[in-house]
Amino acid sequence: MSEYTGYKGRSLEFLKSNNVSVGDSVKITADLTFLGIIMPRYEHSDDKHVVLKLNNGYNIGLELDKITKIEKISSSEKTVESQPKIEENPSLPKILLLSTGGTIASKVDYRTGAVTPILSAEELNSSVPELSKLANIDTEVLFSEYSENIMPDHWLQIANKLVEFSKSNYSGIIIAHGTDTMHYTSSFLSFALAGFPIPIVLVGSQRSSDRASSDAALNLIGATRFLVECKSNGVYVVMHHDESDETISCHLGTRVRKNHTSKRSAFETIGNSPAFVITGDKIQKNVEGNYFKINEFTPKVSLDTKVALVKYYPGYNAELLDKIIDMDYRAIIFEGTGLGHIGKVLYESVKKAHEKGVFLGMTSQCIDGRVGMTVYESGRDLLNLGIVPLENMIPEVALVKAMWVLGNSNDKEEIKNLMLENIASEIS
Amino acid sequence: MSEYTGYKGRSLEFLKSNNVSVGDSVKITADLTFLGIIMPRYEHSDDKHVVLKLNNGYNIGLELDKITKIEKISSSEKTVESQPKIEENPSLPKILLLSTGGTIASKVDYRTGAVTPILSAEELNSSVPELSKLANIDTEVLFSEYSENIMPDHWLQIANKLVEFSKSNYSGIIIAHGTDTMHYTSSFLSFALAGFPIPIVLVGSQRSSDRASSDAALNLIGATRFLVECKSNGVYVVMHHDESDETISCHLGTRVRKNHTSKRSAFETIGNSPAFVITGDKIQKNVEGNYFKINEFTPKVSLDTKVALVKYYPGYNAELLDKIIDMDYRAIIFEGTGLGHIGKVLYESVKKAHEKGVFLGMTSQCIDGRVGMTVYESGRDLLNLGIVPLENMIPEVALVKAMWVLGNSNDKEEIKNLMLENIASEIS
Repeated sequence: MSEYTGYKGRSLEFLKSNNVSVGDSVKITADLTFLGIIMPRYEHSDDKHVVLKLNNGYNIGLELDKITKIEKISSSEKTVESQPKIEENPSLPKILLLSTGGTIASKVDYRTGAVTPILSAEELNSSVPELSKLANIDTEVLFSEYSENIMPDHWLQIANKLVEFSKSNYSGIIIAHGTDTMHYTSSFLSFALAGFPIPIVLVGSQRSSDRASSDAALNLIGATRFLVECKSNGVYVVMHHDESDETISCHLGTRVRKNHTSKRSAFETIGNSPAFVITGDKIQKNVEGNYFKINEFTPKVSLDTKVALVKYYPGYNAELLDKIIDMDYRAIIFEGTGLGHIGKVLYESVKKAHEKGVFLGMTSQCIDGRVGMTVYESGRDLLNLGIVPLENMIPEVALVKAMWVLGNSNDKEEIKNLMLENIASEIS
Repeated sequence: MSEYTGYKGRSLEFLKSNNVSVGDSVKITADLTFLGIIMPRYEHSDDKHVVLKLNNGYNIGLELDKITKIEKISSSEKTVESQPKIEENPSLPKILLLSTGGTIASKVDYRTGAVTPILSAEELNSSVPELSKLANIDTEVLFSEYSENIMPDHWLQIANKLVEFSKSNYSGIIIAHGTDTMHYTSSFLSFALAGFPIPIVLVGSQRSSDRASSDAALNLIGATRFLVECKSNGVYVVMHHDESDETISCHLGTRVRKNHTSKRSAFETIGNSPAFVITGDKIQKNVEGNYFKINEFTPKVSLDTKVALVKYYPGYNAELLDKIIDMDYRAIIFEGTGLGHIGKVLYESVKKAHEKGVFLGMTSQCIDGRVGMTVYESGRDLLNLGIVPLENMIPEVALVKAMWVLGNSNDKEEIKNLMLENIASEIS
């Protein structure tokens, strides 16, 4: 990103002539006085405004014609502050924090456009001092990706890294992860590492750590407390419970979904309360039984991405499904309507897929609730066509599970059995 | 459906030898005594059981080996009962009920496998006598389809039929509809009939009317009361509010989604309370302003189905998107992650689509919340590639709206403007 990204014409001229560039802290006098950071703009923006990120985190566009004065307070160049060295406390448990990127692991990423991992042990402890009272935290930066760019290959990388620590003396492992696809990653880890002997927690934040409303610190503290105090094996997603700063939810990693674009409490357990809810000193447990239905840990870290998630809707063209079949996909997970239906227009294509040996699984775009394919004639037709109803598995989880199953089996019967076996609480 | 659908081998033999077939009411003696109706089975079923629908609505499988006796109580042949003729009450408002199929319009459909419309005025009033005290209801059966088989062509049929009644003396129109895709239909009607001068209500039921837990009657009464008492123009979906039998929700037809496969309160307004909530005599109004943002009614009943809804997920193959572009789709609505992101792996394809003139709209698979594409670098990249953020439009609604917009315009700029114009409360 250049120092004038997105600025052009008059606005570019304005910045240059005032010796100000993207990322600089400035004071602008217009009808009011504004303090903030010059933000980059996008290509199609006009040339009549500059955009400022205010200290409260909001962006505003200021019209050039109304600006009477602009003063640079500080430039965007980084100042390296020396961090105090944290002493290990031998009476506290050890935790590993793996960073994969995302908002939680980035410092003012919107300021320079770059994702800068900040989670060295020192920086972490210095920015969230409460952590050092709970555990001795080692950190490692695995990679730095926004979660929309995390691919199945990254899942494999994370899982293989975790396997290395399955016999370590860590009490638990925290994975800092972008929130967009955190629930896809938690699902894969749940299947690939079924039976993993120590708890794994994915944690993210919806607002970056330099915003007043950031949830990064509380989520990290919550994740650490969960590991130290609950000692519950499994793969969990730990995030804000509601809009307060007091309560943390620990969701089963195969029963959770990001259900809001921006709220700090965006993550929800589907069809149930979160497995654990932490408010102050109180931990409420809402779940019974083990997360993993398999006790022995024998990692199966492989997958095959030849799985398509097909969301049915009125007007869905059977030709689209035919293309998927022609591309030799090995499994299709339908997001059907209601109890698990798709229109008759797709029956011929479904038949063709079944004859070709494609695994066909049914989930519901309702997201919550169980598919029930014996209630209506349509459902019974689809059963006859070879579609397998996947209970109440969340569509995204069924997709990830199918990738994992196909990576571990070529046998049609085994594939079906694995899809229906409850491995990591994905069926409830 | 044959009279022995799904039965084979021993179980078929058993039914035949006892002169009993699917749909018959029987009394079966096994370890206990069961009263119910013989249900059809699906092709892959075993031949060791018969399935009985008990009077409480549940299905059970009974093992042949444990059955000591089976007696036919009555056969499935229909007896035509004469219905009392309802007298019109001139002091009450007139309402039209259009039936399109679905659970609400079918009588024991699972019994014979056939969808039998029961909504003649007489049958309706006889099965829900409360209705005749609220309004004089005329009925018309438009077609009989389960909603997973309702196609965009059916939307046109319904809309054209409604246009005929725009200048009638009806106080409102009820559309009985299967629940699976009711919210897709309500969206289309909202756009095609923007400004429609009398209120339209879609109503369905999650449990068929012969089950003790049926919601059909209460939903119909709720829909009628809403039309008569609220007099609020727009397109609404009226269903159970919760699991009680006391409260009815009236949802804005462009802000509603089926969020549970089986619960009677499956429909929810996204990101808000339902527009109206009716409990007993009390009607709570939660919405301000008009449903239609256009006052004049000039129906635009046309559409183009060359729109694809693309849900992004880790591992989504860019080739799938390329196929859609090659098939000359005119619009692609993305269900991105989080604030409206898709992985970098799709950038090249998106660029190609944009250059080809395909309309590219962004919604979020989070379903709730607004897309925000200027917050992160990924979002800004996508804006630069020509993707249009569609505010907080629900993905399914954005899909239907795009079909409607393309059916009414060929102009790129106009298409974009219409997609962003709030026509029927689809943006909130």
